Amino acid sequence: MKDLIQNKETTNIYLDEKLLLQQISTLGDIGFEGQNKGRTRIALTDDEKIGRDQIVTWMKELDLDIKIDPIGNIFGTLATNNSVQQPLMMGSHIDTVKNAGALDGCYGVLAGIAVIRAFKDAKIVPNRPITVVAFTNEEGVRYQPDMMGSLVFAKGLDLKIALSSVGTDGSILKDELERIGYYGDFDSSKLTPYKYIELHIEQGPILDADKKEIGVVENLQGISWQKITIEGKANHAGTTPTRLRHDAGLVASLINVFVRDISIKTGTTLATIGSLDMEPNVINVIPNKVTFSLDLRDPNEKKLSEAEEKVKRYLLELEIQEKVKISTQSLARFQPVKFDEELALDIKSSAESLGFSNQRMTSGAGHDAQMISRIAPSAMIFVPSLDGVSHNPKEFTSDEQLIKGAKVLLDVVLKNTI
Amino acid sequence: MKDLIQNKETTNIYLDEKLLLQQISTLGDIGFEGQNKGRTRIALTDDEKIGRDQIVTWMKELDLDIKIDPIGNIFGTLATNNSVQQPLMMGSHIDTVKNAGALDGCYGVLAGIAVIRAFKDAKIVPNRPITVVAFTNEEGVRYQPDMMGSLVFAKGLDLKIALSSVGTDGSILKDELERIGYYGDFDSSKLTPYKYIELHIEQGPILDADKKEIGVVENLQGISWQKITIEGKANHAGTTPTRLRHDAGLVASLINVFVRDISIKTGTTLATIGSLDMEPNVINVIPNKVTFSLDLRDPNEKKLSEAEEKVKRYLLELEIQEKVKISTQSLARFQPVKFDEELALDIKSSAESLGFSNQRMTSGAGHDAQMISRIAPSAMIFVPSLDGVSHNPKEFTSDEQLIKGAKVLLDVVLKNTI
Repeated sequence: MKDLIQNKETTNIYLDEKLLLQQISTLGDIGFEGQNKGRTRIALTDDEKIGRDQIVTWMKELDLDIKIDPIGNIFGTLATNNSVQQPLMMGSHIDTVKNAGALDGCYGVLAGIAVIRAFKDAKIVPNRPITVVAFTNEEGVRYQPDMMGSLVFAKGLDLKIALSSVGTDGSILKDELERIGYYGDFDSSKLTPYKYIELHIEQGPILDADKKEIGVVENLQGISWQKITIEGKANHAGTTPTRLRHDAGLVASLINVFVRDISIKTGTTLATIGSLDMEPNVINVIPNKVTFSLDLRDPNEKKLSEAEEKVKRYLLELEIQEKVKISTQSLARFQPVKFDEELALDIKSSAESLGFSNQRMTSGAGHDAQMISRIAPSAMIFVPSLDGVSHNPKEFTSDEQLIKGAKVLLDVVLKNTI
Repeated sequence: MKDLIQNKETTNIYLDEKLLLQQISTLGDIGFEGQNKGRTRIALTDDEKIGRDQIVTWMKELDLDIKIDPIGNIFGTLATNNSVQQPLMMGSHIDTVKNAGALDGCYGVLAGIAVIRAFKDAKIVPNRPITVVAFTNEEGVRYQPDMMGSLVFAKGLDLKIALSSVGTDGSILKDELERIGYYGDFDSSKLTPYKYIELHIEQGPILDADKKEIGVVENLQGISWQKITIEGKANHAGTTPTRLRHDAGLVASLINVFVRDISIKTGTTLATIGSLDMEPNVINVIPNKVTFSLDLRDPNEKKLSEAEEKVKRYLLELEIQEKVKISTQSLARFQPVKFDEELALDIKSSAESLGFSNQRMTSGAGHDAQMISRIAPSAMIFVPSLDGVSHNPKEFTSDEQLIKGAKVLLDVVLKNTI
């Protein structure tokens, strides 16, 4: 099960493929709720703590220097004999959405551990430290914004503000970090990676549709998350004439149809209303309050801003037309990111030299790499997701593809550390 | 506080207005959650049991013959010396929606008790029994269909089927009746009312807008309740191109906009999506499943059927267009009801003789009277609801108006029992 990686400047180095696949499976069992429900390991819950402990155990088996910072990011570092201290960093996250697959995030962290294991097994000491990191709360299901751990690490969000985040369940993030034992004391603000590489499943259909094995991710689309609250009036469904209604649910529906229209017209903007709660949520009462999320994305900042602007104007129209009160709150706003060209070329040449078909592409999803690109040259490696399915128990990438992605990661790390 | 009711055929009879208003307030305190939340006393919950016990206590104070049938309807009867056994029946319900006002249903039951108290106080023995009834589960929030107690009593729903209803919380109706001590042994199937009169707040804006004191309810619109389930596909919100989406939430939104359109075009059909649940309900995941209720009403059976048919055809179109699976389940279907003309004329003449402005009208809401009209001549008396607000803590009818409605009820009962 061990394949040789040929690297021009070093001795033979092997990836323990079987162990990598095993660890992906073992981590995927934590929070597992059955075939149809997948696993749910939302940030800082009891199940996610078990996942974290498992990662730390595996890092310890490799004698890594393990550090936890106050936002709960876990850093495991393989030391160097060299005086160079800026580590090459690899990683991703291990928190999941509700009913998730086993690969999103976890794959990048465990492949990073596998790469370090390959160095250890081959007794190669790198010329700079190599760090694998698991960032806190990438998914943003319970606490907003998403990609929080990497954003704090990249100094894009004040630690204190992040720690005081209130969860959808009313919990305070810092309390939960302390409760699960991951409110660490490592001052990561002084750590700046030399470069950052993130290996991830695509979570989209492009590589699978184009029959390509490796995605060289050169940029990432911009993301705008808003929470929108419509306040109408609860009235009896049977007695209130249509013209006198202030139906918060209907207004939310009109917005959903409107943003779908923006998507169709632009061809690049993606718009999703993924979560929605209605009050009082009773069959024969006109909803008086609807709160929902609006997720807008576009690789082009101008188009993303235009979509936001169109929505804003439509909300004002609806306030007048339906006599409701609408308020919006920005939960996250990230401009499109251009990754490091040199690192992208490294990834491309590694894929080529390993004989894997590949293409340059845009990431549709947000990733920790987009945050780290603020402080270090960053890029990403994608492997195909079957039918583009992700955030779903049916998320699937073949073992063969997972190994190919990890091999590219190892090769890029070798290029940058020996 | 006692006003004289002049009735041509009897001695003086008085309504204890203060006590009626007090009892409305006392019952309204049960399940009260604060000024902004009103009271929640959903059928067969602990709080509703306390409400039932209170009603029974007040019936006992009047020495009524109290009987509970197996669906939990509470009958309190004032006996007659006469051999006539078919009672004149008044009543309504005391269960509420979530965050309700104090009047919906309760007013009719308590005014019925007040009318019987007036007979007792005046020592008048009616020429037939007078029964006040509180029907089980009129609102249909927890168990469907709504108006269940009266429907079973009127032989429109098999008792066994009703008892085995599964609640939104997974509970079985019969278990809950037994738990709260209201699974009675009175065989109400042998009881047929002489006539049935229900006093109720309008729960709509018509009387308030037209500045009329009494509504003479001559008919009631038809009701169609469906549960609609959309099954799409959960995919990542950032990576799934618009054309490849199967967004169950968007489909629900399209349906909401479509039914609003039907309402506007017909001018008489009312359409409401009052409750909706999304899965997995996460900000960055396209909803794979949405379940929602659709409430359609029209006073004209043909128009109501047409609206149902239009929705059905649109769902088929959406299944193809959005590649989703849509299933529907009928939760309740009642044809429009024409009330008893003689009883409506009695109500009108009582209102006139008492000097109260009035108008004939259609009930927009479903009421127990619509069920009882299957087995006995029935009609309803409405009083104005401020701004038409109901099913809301802000539901309001002035004390003066509440008393006027009860006086009309007393006068109509006198006409039919002495």
